[in-house]
Amino acid sequence: MGTEALARLAEERVDHRFKGLPPDAHGLTLGELAAQRRNLFTDGFTTPVLALSAERLEHNLRLMEAYTARHGLAFAPHGKTSMAPQLFHRQIEHGAWGITLAVPHQVWVARAFGIERIFLANELVDPAALRRLAAELAADPAFRFVCCVDSVRGVELMDAALRGTACPVDVVVELGAGQGARTGARTEAECAAVADAVAATKTLRLVGVAGYEGEVPQANPERVRAWLRRLVALAVDLDAAGRFARAGEIVVSAGGSAWFDVVAEVFAEIPELSLPVLKLLRSGAYVSHDDGHYRELTPFRRVPAEGALEAAFRLWAQIVSRPSPEQAFANAGKRDAAYDLHLPFAQVVRRDGVERPATDVRVTGLSDQHTWLSTGPAADVEVGDWIGLGLSHPCTVFDKWPLIVVAEADGTVVDCIRTFF
Amino acid sequence: MGTEALARLAEERVDHRFKGLPPDAHGLTLGELAAQRRNLFTDGFTTPVLALSAERLEHNLRLMEAYTARHGLAFAPHGKTSMAPQLFHRQIEHGAWGITLAVPHQVWVARAFGIERIFLANELVDPAALRRLAAELAADPAFRFVCCVDSVRGVELMDAALRGTACPVDVVVELGAGQGARTGARTEAECAAVADAVAATKTLRLVGVAGYEGEVPQANPERVRAWLRRLVALAVDLDAAGRFARAGEIVVSAGGSAWFDVVAEVFAEIPELSLPVLKLLRSGAYVSHDDGHYRELTPFRRVPAEGALEAAFRLWAQIVSRPSPEQAFANAGKRDAAYDLHLPFAQVVRRDGVERPATDVRVTGLSDQHTWLSTGPAADVEVGDWIGLGLSHPCTVFDKWPLIVVAEADGTVVDCIRTFF
Repeated sequence: MGTEALARLAEERVDHRFKGLPPDAHGLTLGELAAQRRNLFTDGFTTPVLALSAERLEHNLRLMEAYTARHGLAFAPHGKTSMAPQLFHRQIEHGAWGITLAVPHQVWVARAFGIERIFLANELVDPAALRRLAAELAADPAFRFVCCVDSVRGVELMDAALRGTACPVDVVVELGAGQGARTGARTEAECAAVADAVAATKTLRLVGVAGYEGEVPQANPERVRAWLRRLVALAVDLDAAGRFARAGEIVVSAGGSAWFDVVAEVFAEIPELSLPVLKLLRSGAYVSHDDGHYRELTPFRRVPAEGALEAAFRLWAQIVSRPSPEQAFANAGKRDAAYDLHLPFAQVVRRDGVERPATDVRVTGLSDQHTWLSTGPAADVEVGDWIGLGLSHPCTVFDKWPLIVVAEADGTVVDCIRTFF
Repeated sequence: MGTEALARLAEERVDHRFKGLPPDAHGLTLGELAAQRRNLFTDGFTTPVLALSAERLEHNLRLMEAYTARHGLAFAPHGKTSMAPQLFHRQIEHGAWGITLAVPHQVWVARAFGIERIFLANELVDPAALRRLAAELAADPAFRFVCCVDSVRGVELMDAALRGTACPVDVVVELGAGQGARTGARTEAECAAVADAVAATKTLRLVGVAGYEGEVPQANPERVRAWLRRLVALAVDLDAAGRFARAGEIVVSAGGSAWFDVVAEVFAEIPELSLPVLKLLRSGAYVSHDDGHYRELTPFRRVPAEGALEAAFRLWAQIVSRPSPEQAFANAGKRDAAYDLHLPFAQVVRRDGVERPATDVRVTGLSDQHTWLSTGPAADVEVGDWIGLGLSHPCTVFDKWPLIVVAEADGTVVDCIRTFF
């Protein structure tokens, strides 16, 4: 099913739905466009256009495949980052156990493209969504689904919605990362009460514990380690209390993109339990990495011997106005670039086929459809130039592009990635 | 052409592409779903789901139709706000001259849905986009297109790209709103040089002047009025110099959503020129209005006798976690809500069919997929409740939803609006 759905993506037509594609490619299929191997800079692509580096994407996929294998971790990269089924399948080809998602809509996207194992890193209490989920579980024995619960009321709402359905839904108890942190029960006693509530239902099956160390207050390696040890201890205690008796394996899950080295370290300490343990890492931002937030926070800075991720996005915009020696404006804006954690970074300028560093050029703001650039005395920027921008926060880059071109280092466009937000 | 393309939208199928629609509606066409007149709260719609008020939308369309007619203004509402061809057509049915847009991709969207008059409020120097534009102008005599120029270099790049095409492209000189403002030539002398450069081409035709008073530094009514008078004087001077000799009418355009009262006032003072004058207002945010930025900035606060816009969006999310008396978390996040100007506003809570004010509930943050809620002693919020959120900045609300449901006050869903970002 997944393969057919992916093939249908390649049959979609280039048209008004997609930004940045060459006007003279309208009417081609996306597959035909990719097969033409056009050049991003000379074959009619129009700005703003977001390019994903083919080589860097492949590097990142391989690096996390090797990393998780080396540390004995199962991997369910968070799919909310890209919402790109083509990337989900490449992640799975590169060893991923499945895909993590955040909300039911994202589950329907993944299911439409044949993803068989889904970890929903959130509570799910919507009756209509739960009934559809139950129907999918009943119809497809290969479909493995796990979601979080962090309250007795949540368990009761799930149970009420699922009464009469055929298969129990697997859940993990979510432990909050601290007082004032995001979702998750705050104490082990509350987690035990949630586990009791699950045990009292026929519609749910407790299969493990989960949490998100990225929300540990004032996170540093010591605090993150301490919290992860609480999470492991919770799994040990619930196992000792027989709470996983109906599970086939015990899921212990954590891991965003900032602390997976500490997750690997603490999960290596998990003692033998009554069943095999699925140590499930969920980092998602690695697939594109970035030039801002995750460039700073990546665990590979602490463990350089294990490799380094590479920022795979570059947003190309065109200078449309140069009203003074101190200012220039490009035609990309909030519709095209992430702006929640950092503004874009001016990296390079292209004119007449020559690419130079964007010396003395700085992004100072984004309007809906404009990039504000401050230009110093050494800046060489003219109307018509293309400017290449680095970005921060993969999640809010992907979500602005229904279609992203994949280009090799020389600019050859080799693929088109569709996203579904 | 436009009508057929709109009809095809109603034939699109409910599937994984669209957030919030009922799982049991998958496979229906959007038209069939609307015809079912389902209830937003009880008929399977799943959170997060964004609803546009049918009544408020209609009110806003009528109000600006009356306002622009009363003030003798032609209206090209900025389509970048919604990028919803269905709304473009309703705007035109409600008296709009055409649609304003910001980048070539948006022009292709409008053209795919048969929009005949387009004002591109930006410079356009991309050769591939210019050639496609020229081909559309040659193929469709009814297509009227105007764009901005603010530099001699821009004129030269346009001319080089358009050499050999059949019809000249209409341009207006853009006057910047001040030193340090956004695009637009900074001085009248520079504008005159741009006009000279246009006159020296066979590919471009100067038809007027434009600018954006929303970028006047430290804007207040006096400063905005002074700048608009500069814009009008520029039109008068260029006309006296014979620079519009090849035009059929003279375009004078300004007007975002914060100062259209001052635009109306100053444009009423435009003296007789050598040709009829098209006084073109471009405000776009009015169509949905909002509960934040434009609620504060709307000109109707200065001219209450002329009416008032109504905030038409409400984002519905579900409480999925209530880990402490002080905190709750809903399942909408940066993927669903605007966050560039304000956080969402907690307005109402629904439980068991009863809607109450969201007393003592406040949004304190957004993650990618979560709303952080602070809950005081008077808050009555439980896991499973729906929370209705007001939003700020229509442009960054629309762009997060490929499909938006239109609902009447009692929750009856009567239409589905598609957007193309």
